[in-house]
Amino acid sequence: MSYTSTSAPSTGRFIVFEGLDGAGKTTQLRLLENRLRGAGRRVHCTAEPTSSAIGGLIRDSLSGNHPRCAEELAALFLADRIAHNADPIRGFGRLLDAGTDVISDRYYYSCFAYQGAETDLDWVMDMHLRCPALRRPDLCVYLDLDPERAVARISRGRENVEIYENARKLTEARERYFRVFERLAAKGEVIRVIDADADENAVAEAVWASVREVCGL
Amino acid sequence: MSYTSTSAPSTGRFIVFEGLDGAGKTTQLRLLENRLRGAGRRVHCTAEPTSSAIGGLIRDSLSGNHPRCAEELAALFLADRIAHNADPIRGFGRLLDAGTDVISDRYYYSCFAYQGAETDLDWVMDMHLRCPALRRPDLCVYLDLDPERAVARISRGRENVEIYENARKLTEARERYFRVFERLAAKGEVIRVIDADADENAVAEAVWASVREVCGL
Repeated sequence: MSYTSTSAPSTGRFIVFEGLDGAGKTTQLRLLENRLRGAGRRVHCTAEPTSSAIGGLIRDSLSGNHPRCAEELAALFLADRIAHNADPIRGFGRLLDAGTDVISDRYYYSCFAYQGAETDLDWVMDMHLRCPALRRPDLCVYLDLDPERAVARISRGRENVEIYENARKLTEARERYFRVFERLAAKGEVIRVIDADADENAVAEAVWASVREVCGL
Repeated sequence: MSYTSTSAPSTGRFIVFEGLDGAGKTTQLRLLENRLRGAGRRVHCTAEPTSSAIGGLIRDSLSGNHPRCAEELAALFLADRIAHNADPIRGFGRLLDAGTDVISDRYYYSCFAYQGAETDLDWVMDMHLRCPALRRPDLCVYLDLDPERAVARISRGRENVEIYENARKLTEARERYFRVFERLAAKGEVIRVIDADADENAVAEAVWASVREVCGL
């Protein structure tokens, strides 16, 4: 006679991709999704800002149509992020609880690196990290692309160049990400920086190795 | 020969009315506006949530059309409040700086008393009080109406009864306001509680006495 565990199913893993625009987040997110599905796991892919009404206000502002100050943007991102977690219909929190892995293209790290640079970073970080409705990711994968290459990739692939996209700004953004990661690592967050200049499959291998190690798959 | 001061004009006074629905905030706000204008001052009257797109999302949620959790509502209120202060066109911050008095029907006190009750109050208070873009009022006038009378007034004057409006909830809301005021007074905020059961003109006299005393008019 054998015994089968009757404990509740384990929660899904919450994995976030971060990186400059052009670093390959969307591609790597899809490759990781396939890998996880191939390993027999249920996967939900998502992105921030979300497609909600609040997400629309944020995108309108980032594209320069409706300028908002950094503080207002940070608060809007927080509201969008809370709904992204906790909305009873569209939120991913209930999926994690039901055992589905969630992979998000951007999360609060972006907000710290961008809005945090234009106002009090402690304020932006604390209102996120102390928020009772936000999940902490199991793993943040930062796809680290040289800012010069990011600009080259962006201009090749797109017609509309958003406000953050030029080499100097990207260099500063990358530096801010690293400063934020240092502070978050001290608070117990797990962040892996992966060289995104390498070939797509090599990057995917490195991502998969990190996910298996950190998430115990 | 006499000397005339050439210093910059003093900033306007920022006065907030708080109280349960039905306490007479709108009426008293207009009476104070008239008194201030009569004293030769420029006055701008405003209210929260604002008439912006974000304010619309908040009202939709409060009326029950689009439920949002307390954390999301608190973040949306914060975003709306930041724009209310700092928006270069519609914000009242530049008016204060130019010497105009600003009277607002509700401000962050409402958010502390309502959303703060359903989540971590420290989180809600800190994200407001530490926000670099929010002004601290010179004076908060709380129009203190007996919750039973508030319900009677509301049912007389209105057809749509919003979600917060019944006696038990109002009693709890009043108690939360007082707990919040105690904490804010310890942080240097100036709050005056005025009996709103009295006759309209008597309330207006009490409000005017507080404004003159606190704002040095």
